[in-house]
Amino acid sequence: MSETSSDWQKTTIDSAQAAAHPETAQAVARIKALRQTIDNIDSAAIALLAERFKTTSQVGVLKANAGFAPEDTKREDYQIERLHRIAIDAGLDPEIAEMYREFVVTEAKKRHQRIADAGGDPGVLDVFA
Amino acid sequence: MSETSSDWQKTTIDSAQAAAHPETAQAVARIKALRQTIDNIDSAAIALLAERFKTTSQVGVLKANAGFAPEDTKREDYQIERLHRIAIDAGLDPEIAEMYREFVVTEAKKRHQRIADAGGDPGVLDVFA
Repeated sequence: MSETSSDWQKTTIDSAQAAAHPETAQAVARIKALRQTIDNIDSAAIALLAERFKTTSQVGVLKANAGFAPEDTKREDYQIERLHRIAIDAGLDPEIAEMYREFVVTEAKKRHQRIADAGGDPGVLDVFA
Repeated sequence: MSETSSDWQKTTIDSAQAAAHPETAQAVARIKALRQTIDNIDSAAIALLAERFKTTSQVGVLKANAGFAPEDTKREDYQIERLHRIAIDAGLDPEIAEMYREFVVTEAKKRHQRIADAGGDPGVLDVFA
């Protein structure tokens, strides 16, 4: 690592800086390419999250109308075990999979409660109206 | 809602209970089908997260070797604006998209720091060794 490395500690990676430090220009180009991959993954992830919350919203309406509680611990235990297994298969730290599960399940339950409080009306979640 | 609805407040949805309450059997069947969709979405999401963390791990190695800091606020501002826009297009509450971003970026930065502390060795993240 060069003596100039500390200059970089709080800087944004851009092409002007890369030109001033030719030795890092290659790393900058490679990071830029990887970031495009990350952005594409995020686009797909957002599309999946949109479909997931549309689906859990339907579950929320059915639960509210049938009088079921938002929480279902047996279902959650199943999801914990399943996502742990899938994460290992995919080469993902299972801790990350559990954080994902906790995030989506917590938010879905909050929305189920809002639907129940609104007497089974999923329109309560429509933030785009 | 029937007077028996309170029986359901803390119960798990299963077919035995559905048989005892025929009026809710249809809702249970519909929830079961929706849960399969949710599980399929989660499988895809875990695969994407696995690829995302593999990619950010590569970024972490490049940053550590070049002496770049794990944090890049300009990049984060870009991601915040972009994911907000994509979420609205997809019909997802932008608040959920921001929670997703915060989760993955926070975890990626922690892992970048671990790689930097290990002198650029991504093996430090290998929880499967």
